[in-house]
Amino acid sequence: MKRVITISRQFGSGGRTIGKNLAERLGISCYDNELIEELAAKSGFAKNYVAEKGEYIERNMFFNAISYGRSSLPTNQDYLWNIQSKIIMDIGKKENCVIVGRCADYLLRDTADCLKIFIHSDMEKRAERIVKIYGESSEAPEKRLKDKDKRRRTYYQFYTDMQWGDMKNYDIALNSGALGIDKCVDIIASAY
Amino acid sequence: MKRVITISRQFGSGGRTIGKNLAERLGISCYDNELIEELAAKSGFAKNYVAEKGEYIERNMFFNAISYGRSSLPTNQDYLWNIQSKIIMDIGKKENCVIVGRCADYLLRDTADCLKIFIHSDMEKRAERIVKIYGESSEAPEKRLKDKDKRRRTYYQFYTDMQWGDMKNYDIALNSGALGIDKCVDIIASAY
Repeated sequence: MKRVITISRQFGSGGRTIGKNLAERLGISCYDNELIEELAAKSGFAKNYVAEKGEYIERNMFFNAISYGRSSLPTNQDYLWNIQSKIIMDIGKKENCVIVGRCADYLLRDTADCLKIFIHSDMEKRAERIVKIYGESSEAPEKRLKDKDKRRRTYYQFYTDMQWGDMKNYDIALNSGALGIDKCVDIIASAY
Repeated sequence: MKRVITISRQFGSGGRTIGKNLAERLGISCYDNELIEELAAKSGFAKNYVAEKGEYIERNMFFNAISYGRSSLPTNQDYLWNIQSKIIMDIGKKENCVIVGRCADYLLRDTADCLKIFIHSDMEKRAERIVKIYGESSEAPEKRLKDKDKRRRTYYQFYTDMQWGDMKNYDIALNSGALGIDKCVDIIASAY
């Protein structure tokens, strides 16, 4: 089995930077959301999805109705979830790597040797960080953080049936605000 | 400020063993529940408590009533809490060390440079461990674990007003069942 470091993270906690630096340190690839979305856009799945959208909707509606008991229609997100899942499963079979976000810990639970990481930090440090990185916004940084966390939590729980940010789902949970980005990289590298 | 590693842990997760091995590795002392209770029993506080028990009850009843809004009487545990708190505060001023349990992370939050650790593990691995270490019991290991965790959680929340086992309260949370005891020691030592 390939050894995969999966990083879940609160928005603004620096999880993505930690993933990139860690992968560089270990000489392996880092796949983050952007890269996975890019792969999805380039893949045959994406083309199929566009081509067979009509049929796909019908099948998914039925599947979702019996599996999740949902009343709402499947969204574009559901298609992207299917495509990304397949891409992540393929990556996890192919190489040792770091994967940031996208429920990789859940998707690879049986097919890769995963070191499951969660990165969190207090609201104040995260607010500082997102203003520094993403710039000012008309919304207060605390509101942006809460909204993003909520969306990540909902996404994770919807697709995995597991609790996002519940430490029992992770091997290592680190407070990047208290420890700093570099120390987090050191700790994960030493555990790997 | 002294550098103190505080270890909170689920029952049966090996937190105490990790604390002992870690302290040995770092050449510092490890204070666990037993040692702190022993210090309390030997201390002048304990003698005072025994001697002035009557007066102490009166003062505590009033204090608790206005502070916590409690209706129940203060227990022996409240006295022991006061004594142990003082002992832990003194230790935290005196030396770099490891302290296992007893809400040390909370008690030393302003007076020591704390590295706050939480050790957890899945039920199955913990059940194996407590049967191996504490032997068989008439109670099923899962029941003992749940009961012990519940009592630790209640104790912690009662005295600190904080959530036990909520990862945002810790710098590093480790799954000892997945990582193993030795790897946990390595990780904490490297972070310290």
